[in-house]
This record gives sequence, C-alpha cells and structure tokens, in this order.
Amino acid sequence: MITTLAEKSDTLYNDVADKVTRLIEAGTLRPGEKIPSVRKLSQQLKVSVSTVLQAYRLLEDRGQIEAKPQSGYYVRARFWQKSVEPAMTQPPIRTTEVAIGEMAARVLQEGQRRDLVPLGAALQGPDVLPVRQLNRSLAAITRRSPTAGGSYDSPAGNEMLRVQIARRSLDAGCAISPDDVITTAGCQEAVGFCLRAVAKPGDTIALESPTFYGILQLIEMLGFKAVEVPTDPRTGVCTDGLTKVLDSTPVAACLFVTNYNNPLGSCVPDECKQKLVKLLAARGIPLIEDDIYGDLGFGPQRPKTCKAFDEDGGVLLCSSFSKTLAPGYRVGWCVPGRYREKVERLKLFTNIANATLPQMAIAEFLATGGYDHHLRRMRKAFQDQVARVSDAVCEHFPDGTRLTRPGGGFVLWVEMDERVDALRLHELALAERIGIAPGPIFSASGKYRNCMRLNCEAPWSDRIEGAVERLGRLVKGMVA
Amino acid sequence: MITTLAEKSDTLYNDVADKVTRLIEAGTLRPGEKIPSVRKLSQQLKVSVSTVLQAYRLLEDRGQIEAKPQSGYYVRARFWQKSVEPAMTQPPIRTTEVAIGEMAARVLQEGQRRDLVPLGAALQGPDVLPVRQLNRSLAAITRRSPTAGGSYDSPAGNEMLRVQIARRSLDAGCAISPDDVITTAGCQEAVGFCLRAVAKPGDTIALESPTFYGILQLIEMLGFKAVEVPTDPRTGVCTDGLTKVLDSTPVAACLFVTNYNNPLGSCVPDECKQKLVKLLAARGIPLIEDDIYGDLGFGPQRPKTCKAFDEDGGVLLCSSFSKTLAPGYRVGWCVPGRYREKVERLKLFTNIANATLPQMAIAEFLATGGYDHHLRRMRKAFQDQVARVSDAVCEHFPDGTRLTRPGGGFVLWVEMDERVDALRLHELALAERIGIAPGPIFSASGKYRNCMRLNCEAPWSDRIEGAVERLGRLVKGMVA
Repeated sequence: MITTLAEKSDTLYNDVADKVTRLIEAGTLRPGEKIPSVRKLSQQLKVSVSTVLQAYRLLEDRGQIEAKPQSGYYVRARFWQKSVEPAMTQPPIRTTEVAIGEMAARVLQEGQRRDLVPLGAALQGPDVLPVRQLNRSLAAITRRSPTAGGSYDSPAGNEMLRVQIARRSLDAGCAISPDDVITTAGCQEAVGFCLRAVAKPGDTIALESPTFYGILQLIEMLGFKAVEVPTDPRTGVCTDGLTKVLDSTPVAACLFVTNYNNPLGSCVPDECKQKLVKLLAARGIPLIEDDIYGDLGFGPQRPKTCKAFDEDGGVLLCSSFSKTLAPGYRVGWCVPGRYREKVERLKLFTNIANATLPQMAIAEFLATGGYDHHLRRMRKAFQDQVARVSDAVCEHFPDGTRLTRPGGGFVLWVEMDERVDALRLHELALAERIGIAPGPIFSASGKYRNCMRLNCEAPWSDRIEGAVERLGRLVKGMVA
Repeated sequence: MITTLAEKSDTLYNDVADKVTRLIEAGTLRPGEKIPSVRKLSQQLKVSVSTVLQAYRLLEDRGQIEAKPQSGYYVRARFWQKSVEPAMTQPPIRTTEVAIGEMAARVLQEGQRRDLVPLGAALQGPDVLPVRQLNRSLAAITRRSPTAGGSYDSPAGNEMLRVQIARRSLDAGCAISPDDVITTAGCQEAVGFCLRAVAKPGDTIALESPTFYGILQLIEMLGFKAVEVPTDPRTGVCTDGLTKVLDSTPVAACLFVTNYNNPLGSCVPDECKQKLVKLLAARGIPLIEDDIYGDLGFGPQRPKTCKAFDEDGGVLLCSSFSKTLAPGYRVGWCVPGRYREKVERLKLFTNIANATLPQMAIAEFLATGGYDHHLRRMRKAFQDQVARVSDAVCEHFPDGTRLTRPGGGFVLWVEMDERVDALRLHELALAERIGIAPGPIFSASGKYRNCMRLNCEAPWSDRIEGAVERLGRLVKGMVA
C-alpha cells in the first residue's frame, strides 16, 4: 500500500515538473524570471504543496530552475536547454616539444591590465573568498603562538594542516594519513615536484586536450615533451583514447585534472576513474592527478579522486587552497603515494619548507568548521555566474557557437566558427578592454585556434554582460 | 702643529693598547675577565680618558677585547691569540658529479633529533630572532589590510618589500631599484632559480671548497656537475685559484658565498671582490652570489657584495631573511641582473609568487626601523657565542686542531688530526646526544673527512661547554 502511494506521488510530481518544463521551453517562463511560488502552483494545479516542492527539487536537480534564498524559484539560464556542446577533442596522437612559452607569456601579460573586464585569466581573488576570516585566524595564531614562524617547518609541512587535509580527503573517497601529505607553495609547485619525481627531462607526459596553460608552461620549463589525449567536454579523458595514445607512444606519466578540468570543465565519472587507475597501474605508469577544482562541483555529491582507487601508490594527488580560500597564502599539497620520499626531498632542496603561519591559519580555518559552509556559498555563486555568462554567450554569439556545460568550477570553453582566430579576437577584445584566454595557449600542439576560455569568477554585472555582447559582435565581424 | 699633535696622540694610544695586549698575552688579564675601566686606566697610566678610549677601540677592532653595554670592557676568547687556522684548501681541480645525496640526507636526518645539543645543523630559530615583534607586525597588517593575501602577488614579489630590499642594498654598496628584485621562498629557492637561469643540466658550476651542503644538494638535484675552487679560511676564493680552475675546466657559472661563507666563515675582501667580478665578466661567466650572512659581520663596517662591482648584470645576488629574522617566514630574494626575466618566469611557473602576508610583515619590520638595532644585538650575540665555542675547542681538543676565526656568521670549521673520521665522530657524538656537521657533507669531491662544522647559534651554556668537552674527549680517543 505504501509502495502504491509512493508510486502515485512519484507520477504526480513528475507530471508537475514536466508541465513547468514545457512552460520554460515554450518561453512562457523565461530565463531569469521568477516562477510561481509553491503555494500558488499547488492552488493552480490542485496538488499538494509537498508535491510541488518535490517537483521543484527535481527541476533544480535538472538545472532548469534555481532557488534564491528569501525570494523563490527562478528559471535558470537557457544554455541548459539550447546550447550545443563541443564534441570530444581529437588532438594529434604524437609526442611534441612544448613551446607555448613566448606566445602564452605575451598573451597572459597583456591580460594582466587592471582595466580589463576580467573574462580572461583571473587576476584578483574572487569576492566570494573568505579572506577576512582567514586573516583573523592568522592574527589569532600570532597571539596564541607568538614565536610561530621562528624556525623552519618540516619539509613535509605543518602537522596540524596535514591532519586537516587527511580528514577532508575522506570526502574525495580517500583514506590517507597525515604522514602521506606534503604541503607545497600552491598546486603548481606540487605538480612540478610530482613531475620531477616520476620523470626526467626529455620524457613524455600525457595531458588532457585542451589543458591549463600553467601546466604546459611547467612541462616546457622542466624540459618534458607532451602528448595530448582525446578529452570529452563532460567526462574528460576516456580510457579508449588513452589506450590508443599509450599503445603508440612511450609515456613516462599522465597528468590529468580529473574533476572540473580547466578549461573544459569536464569531470571523469567515478567508475571511469577506477578504470583509468587500473589501466595505468597495469602498465606501471604513474598518474599525477590535479584536483584543484574538486571542491567546486555544482552537484550535491563531491566527485571522488582517482587517488580513491589507487592500490599501489601510483597516483600522485595534488591540490591547493588557492581556488577556495586565498591564492596569496600559497598553500597547496600533494599525496605522492610511492614517490613520497622523492617529493619530500625535492621540497627540502628547493625551498626547505612552506611558510609556517599561512599553513597554521588555514589549518585553523578548516578545523573550526567554516570551510564547508563557505564552499556551499561559493559553489552557488560560481554556478550562477557560469549560467549567466553561458546565457549571454547563447544570446550574443553567432549560431554554431558551441559551449561547455561544466558541472563545477568557474570557466567556460567556447568553440567558435572555424574562421575565428582567437589570438586576433584577443587583440580586438583588449582594444575594447575585455580580457579573454585564447584557445592556442591551452594546447601543446597548436590546436584550438578558434576557441577561447571565459573566466566566470567575477560576480555577474551589466559590465560583464556588456563585454560578452561586444565579444559576440567581434566574433560576428570575423565570420561575416 | 696639528699634525704633530695628532701624531703624538697616535703614538700614545698605540702604546696604551700594546700595554694591554701584553697583559692579555701574559695571562694577567684572562679571557672573559673585565679589564680596568677607562677612567681607572687613565689614572693608572697618567694619560687622558680619550687616549684610553682610542686604545680600547683599537683593541676592539683587533678582536682582543669587547665592550658590553652598561658593564665595561672584557678580554675576548683566547682563540684569537692561540689557535692555529686551517690553511687554504686544495681541492682537486676536476669536474665531478655531485652525489652527497644519500649520505648527507642520512646525516642531516640523524641530526634532527630534538634531544641533541645543537652544534650540528640548526633546527630551531636562534633565541635572538625578533619573531615576536615580526608576528605583531603580521597581525597589525591583517587589521590594516583585511583582504591582503586574497589574490596572487606578482611573480616579482611584494612591492613594499622590494622597495625595502633596494634601500638596504645601499649598505652592501649596491644601487639597485625595486624592479631589479624578485622575492623568493628563501635563499635556497633564489639560488636554485639563478642556477637554472644561467646553466642547463650537465653543466659545471664552480663552488667554494668546502661549501654548504644545501648548495651541493641543490646542484645534485638539478643535475649539474661541480668543480671546487681553493678557498682561504679568511679571504675566501682567490682569483689565482679560480683562474687555474677556469683555465682547465669549462665552467657555466660560479656560485660563491662571498661574505662569511658557511662553513669556513671566510669573507672575500672588497678589493678582491672587484677583481673577481672583472675576471668573470671578461670570460662571460655569470656569478651567483649568496650573501645570506652578509648582515652578520662582527666588524663595524658591513662588507660589500660582488654585485656592488657588477657592470654588465652578470652577478646574480641572492639572500634572505631566514638567518636574521624568521626562517619559517620563507622570505628571500634575488637581484638576477641580466637574467631577471628568466628568473621571474621560473618563479611564475614554479609556484606563481611568494605568500603575500609574510612579505608585508617583513617589509613593515624593515621600514619601521627595528632591523638595524636588532642586527647589532644579534651580531654581538653571535660574536660572543662563536668566541666561547672557539675557546672551549682550544681548551678541550688535542693539540694540532685547527680552527677558523670567522669575521661574521655563527659557524666554526674545525680541522682535526688526519686520523679523525668525522662521520664516525658524528655517530659517537649522536650516542652522547651531541649534534655536529661532519666535513664530508660539505664537499662534492669527498674531502674534509677529518673536519667538522660547529654551529654556534645557541646561547652559550654549561650544556654546550660540556658537549664541546665531550667532543674533545671523543677526538682524543680517535687519535690515541
């Protein structure tokens, strides 16, 4: 009987949800508009309040509507309904010297002007970061431990912080001990140490395609070669594509951003992560996993890391607090598995240890419980900002533009008409005081000439909407 | 007439000084004892107070006596009078792979036990560091700039700090601008970036002999080779010895600690620095100058740096605040001359930038004027501690032991009988809970088996005196 009732309720709220979806698709309810309140709709459709609530939750999960505190439910940006996603990338399967250096340095340098609408590289920390609280923790620590910072920390890093990192790693499916962790000056340093621990100059590293320019710069600086792996904009690196690469090229290590990759926003499904780890373990190839965006998912469940499926210590997990707390604190970390001792030596010989007080302040912030609350607020903000920029791109860019639908993070990847030269677009945009990140800086093989990354870290504003509109006009001019 | 008077006064105070010296040499005035007050001696010798004052200043300069605030003048440790210094070192002039890694790592690891008398590697910051004041500056900054640390600093580093560093560089004879400076996570990181900017793996770097093990570890990690240059315990690398090395070996760069080198304590006289810079500039060989101890001289005048004589940007000056303010802050810097852009990129690609708040706190401390006062106090303390450890070595070690007479810093280099194996001595000392740094970790070519470095950072105490006495017994046991 209970089952029957539940089934009936199931059908009911699905019906209600479908009705609302049809209103949205027909344009009766438009993106950004408020939809009827729960009470109103329950009266209109003659169903219970709880049924409408269930329906609205379902629509929220589907990304069609969103709740705003003390305000009600709103139609989410249209890109969820109308935009076309880019296809899986098809980079050439061949080892290549990485030489984006000069071009990327010039482009990034140009993008640092303070007067730009910040859709390019992020310059300032986003407004959602809890820096004030963190700085208060720091001041409190100087009072409680007035001589902290007076001696070198251990190369592995501050113990209190390593305990917190180990505890939090449970959320990503890992069971690690504080002794497994080595703290670093940000994720970039962690990835660099891990690369140097597993490979030597001249070796080939397998990367996603496109991949974050900072990783390409690191690979170039360290004298490694790169091979790019086909990458799906939603599900990341696929085992099939990776197998083809490994069969044709000797690869010393893989370096993947498994959760909410920058710039694609892709997230490797947990079951694929397991397959990936097995595949690489069978071939004895270490995986450096950059999980810097892992805490920034829009969904209810934090994705796992490949490290969660690591059985032989071949996964070297790297992350930091630069995207979620304070970039200027320069606190990151890695769990280098069986390469732990090597990485610890690299840290010791490179710069002895991390600065003590920033580590202690972050440990305190993690311990006293503000972090999860803050993450929820931050994820909501980024989800909203990504949706709004997406929406504006759909409105202002020419037909045929393809756009990612990231499940987390704060960047969008835009694939434009073949005739668009993103480096030229970057120049034109600069002249209009708009920053973008042109596609070619994300590829070792010179691909993505007609792509760009848009950074959605800044709160939505008329200024940003205007900038997206002007970008759309520039693009239209290039394909006319 | 005036000349004659001045000459007369000159003779007079020299006479007074000679009299006091004879009293010291005869043992009438003993090390650590108070000598007659200025007034008393002027009455005894029937000369003016100002003549005695001049005589005492001369004796101070000669290192025979020392002033203690509000107390008077004291006879300095006897090592100035009795000990024998080591001769100029004679390392083999040949390029060598550096492979001190495992041995040094083991020795240094063993030396990290908290229960050791700390005559080995320094573990804790010395008591003389002004960490409490620095931490108060840090807390004040979080109140004044509550969002500081919320964004990445520029790869070149915090502007306020670079201004302070540029101002202070005048003391070392340099005229540099804040734009010439790049801040780093300590001096070790600065030296590493500079090495990578001027040389590539496989290249040979010319080093002092002996040289700091951290530098050897860095050279080994980066895949460079080393060649050791004859080094005088007082005057450091000599131009003749260096010329011989350069004539016989292709050298990509020199890396010298020009002021109060660790472990010798040598300081290259300023006129030799100029010759050194000319010699290297003529051959187009860059000089990485590690000046980390430059502020810790015992004399009235801070020595210059080679950078002061640099005309073509070929000197890369490196330093940090780890020895004078707070090691755990991890703030160092370099002035890389014509390699500035390369070093800035290395910083950016390695870990983006230094942590913001520790830099701001140090900039504030430098700006508000406590630094010079603190340095004076610190130099006095180190001078005293070095003298007392020297004295104890002279008293307790067998005849034939040679001991450096450093003009600054806080380490002593002890050359023992040929039969002494310092690695064995290290093991025996550990068993008695005494840390030392055995000679072989300071050489790429396996030299200095019968040498050790003693760290005098810890305030003099019965515990330290007892440890030196026991070390002396152990050494006597090895040569019996």
